[in-house]
Amino acid sequence: MSAGSPSEAPTAAAKLATFMHGLRFQDIPPEVVDSARLRILDILGICVAAREESGPQAVRALVSEWGGREQAEIVGWGDRVPAALAALANGTLAHSMDFDDTHHEVRIHPSTVVVPATLAAAQQAGLDGRALITAAVAGFEALVRIGMVAPARFHERGLHATSLCGTLAVAGIAGRALGLDVRQITHALGVAGSQASGLREAYLGEATDTKAFHAGWACHAGLVAAGLAARGFTGASTVLEGRFGYYNAFVSPDPWDIERLTDDLGRHWETPNIVYKLFPCGSLSHGCIDAALRLRAEENLDPDQIAGATCIVPPGMVSTICEPEHQKLDPQSGYQAKFSIQYAVAEALLSGNVTRASYTDEHVRDPRMQALLPNMRYRTDDSMPFPKKYPGGVVVRLQDGRELERRVPNSPGSPDNPATTEHIVRKFHGNVAGLLTRPAADEIVERILGLENEAGIDAVLALCRTD
Amino acid sequence: MSAGSPSEAPTAAAKLATFMHGLRFQDIPPEVVDSARLRILDILGICVAAREESGPQAVRALVSEWGGREQAEIVGWGDRVPAALAALANGTLAHSMDFDDTHHEVRIHPSTVVVPATLAAAQQAGLDGRALITAAVAGFEALVRIGMVAPARFHERGLHATSLCGTLAVAGIAGRALGLDVRQITHALGVAGSQASGLREAYLGEATDTKAFHAGWACHAGLVAAGLAARGFTGASTVLEGRFGYYNAFVSPDPWDIERLTDDLGRHWETPNIVYKLFPCGSLSHGCIDAALRLRAEENLDPDQIAGATCIVPPGMVSTICEPEHQKLDPQSGYQAKFSIQYAVAEALLSGNVTRASYTDEHVRDPRMQALLPNMRYRTDDSMPFPKKYPGGVVVRLQDGRELERRVPNSPGSPDNPATTEHIVRKFHGNVAGLLTRPAADEIVERILGLENEAGIDAVLALCRTD
Repeated sequence: MSAGSPSEAPTAAAKLATFMHGLRFQDIPPEVVDSARLRILDILGICVAAREESGPQAVRALVSEWGGREQAEIVGWGDRVPAALAALANGTLAHSMDFDDTHHEVRIHPSTVVVPATLAAAQQAGLDGRALITAAVAGFEALVRIGMVAPARFHERGLHATSLCGTLAVAGIAGRALGLDVRQITHALGVAGSQASGLREAYLGEATDTKAFHAGWACHAGLVAAGLAARGFTGASTVLEGRFGYYNAFVSPDPWDIERLTDDLGRHWETPNIVYKLFPCGSLSHGCIDAALRLRAEENLDPDQIAGATCIVPPGMVSTICEPEHQKLDPQSGYQAKFSIQYAVAEALLSGNVTRASYTDEHVRDPRMQALLPNMRYRTDDSMPFPKKYPGGVVVRLQDGRELERRVPNSPGSPDNPATTEHIVRKFHGNVAGLLTRPAADEIVERILGLENEAGIDAVLALCRTD
Repeated sequence: MSAGSPSEAPTAAAKLATFMHGLRFQDIPPEVVDSARLRILDILGICVAAREESGPQAVRALVSEWGGREQAEIVGWGDRVPAALAALANGTLAHSMDFDDTHHEVRIHPSTVVVPATLAAAQQAGLDGRALITAAVAGFEALVRIGMVAPARFHERGLHATSLCGTLAVAGIAGRALGLDVRQITHALGVAGSQASGLREAYLGEATDTKAFHAGWACHAGLVAAGLAARGFTGASTVLEGRFGYYNAFVSPDPWDIERLTDDLGRHWETPNIVYKLFPCGSLSHGCIDAALRLRAEENLDPDQIAGATCIVPPGMVSTICEPEHQKLDPQSGYQAKFSIQYAVAEALLSGNVTRASYTDEHVRDPRMQALLPNMRYRTDDSMPFPKKYPGGVVVRLQDGRELERRVPNSPGSPDNPATTEHIVRKFHGNVAGLLTRPAADEIVERILGLENEAGIDAVLALCRTD
């Protein structure tokens, strides 16, 4: 039963491979191209910043010790190693700061897998800017669709959907980049189904380096799958819908709908629906942060005027970011603070932004923060359409007794509360500040915003080197 | 919640790590050492023979293209590459011919993962023979115990238990070999839980190269996990029993019993209970093959005397290796013949052995085979204790009208129908014949049978080179 045998209906993997193989730059709407370019810029900035994290440092040390053919580059460090190893390091970098984008319905983080894998495959295969953007869009659409077959269903069982779906998407991205035909890409998807992995215990049991590694491992595995398929290796074409396949293994007996994998694929685009993260903390708090920042700017508030504030949240967010209240009001570290909406909104009101500097252990102990935190409250609003959207609001109490309220319909970076190019460029500069020179950062921005005119990605990655 | 924190009970992974870290050569009973040595010899022979298979050739081509630090050797070819890549190739080689051993209760193939991983880690770390045997035994015991927590439960869901359990065992083997402490090995196990993968669709949907690759990928992943843990990387210590951990993800809501992981571990030994494969075909047919070979030898039967034969099997075997009868009596290829008990017993009676030469497409069409196959039958015996054991029997009808019956209690290679050293040595010579010189093969046998006296494994692997 091989993919594309004329007498049989194509399997789900063969249909996905056909889309990923056949997508052309000129078929992609301009707003989708824009979205893909900005996501590449976003991930590059995160990768540069994440070189200060211990997890990626260990991965880089391991793959650089292995060495080998110089196919692709580890972002920031500049080590050139086999593409599948560069992707391992870059995927781990991209997911290390919990600062990468999210597809809300599916609850996956597409760019942290798609961008590192695309960069590595593009370097290996020598893709130009248009081919790179096209491969990335094929990857975004595939990854989201693989998840949409069973949105949020992997999670309950303990599986990390980002890496589980990402491995397959990467196999297709790399297969396309390496010039494989539809049959070979189908085989690569078949191999990748057997590599898909990732347990949520890695971050829900205790905080470990393994969560970020899930993204790197998905990139690594998918590139291996495509490399093998390029050499004639075979995988099951029924990998997705088969009786002993991916959805039965990871979703059944919960329901899944294989039609969502390819219905309208290539006509309806999910890439622009992926929500950027503008703040380096749990995504559930981003609506309230945005409301607080807007209120502060619009009312020209001075921190000294502020007596306290109440976050307005949908009930479904409470257990994760509002409770237990005594912990959220007294985080013991920068990491704990990342999951406190009270802390995040206090920081927005005090500093006028929420950045990496907001989440140092030192900043948590800052006297102004310690003074405001006990005056932070939250309340729920049943009418908020969570989890379809991630809305938020804030009521600020001033020293003069006035109360000011502001709401936003969804996280900033969502289609109905969009992030502008300027937002993402500012985020990029924030991430690379102190690690890259301003002229280098400006040149990276300029070249990525015009990526379709670049002959390749090597020059941009060379600008990302921090050593 | 870190492993070994004095105020808390150790997690399951920490207990397993403590065993794998602490096992000493002098603690291992001699029959367990014997068993481990023979399994190493067995896998070496399989790896040498499997270099003729297309799947391992693709893996070798990929990892050799990557190149890099020369830590360990691909068996047969002799390419030296990073240990995790050598293990990827060697694991794929070891599982490519369906000729490697089986733990019946758990339905896993321990040696195909444990031996390649141990060889690679031993070469990387420069282990001597005793340390290598000890690491292998730690791996065999761990792998079987990880499976015994939920024996045969992974399979129903579509998961390949060999690779799923193997990834964790390899992390422990490599962690031990690389000199990690208990805490670090626990972290390696935590990482490995998030790498555990393998879908049965890879071989139950259609025959693909991916099944054998599962073993290689488990080896690769486990070595990466240990390499990261050696560099301070962290994984969840609750990876096994945690709410979002391994058994909940892959077994629940089916039952599992975490106590079996460590109950009596290091006092009761499962390594000698792993069943060797003496014939390169589906393991369910091995009892009948053995019965036929014994009958033929004991009665000094000549093929010309034989009119036909009936295989006696437990009912539970029928669907896999006896039916559909018209297909089993008329296999269209050597590969199809591997899953026909009628073919296997006919071959045993005709040739006096069942070897790789029995499963060529040409041999299937041999006139003597084509003459005997239509006279092959099977019948079931409800009293046979399958699947606890894999028993078999045969009734041979002679041209003179006599009928002769012979039964065996279990597959040859089981504890109650043991394989002797001579059996495994003969199998080794059969696998390497034509690929290695006889003096080289003899020297490998001699050195592996005295492996505890070797300073390392490099010299033996150099003898395995076929180029």
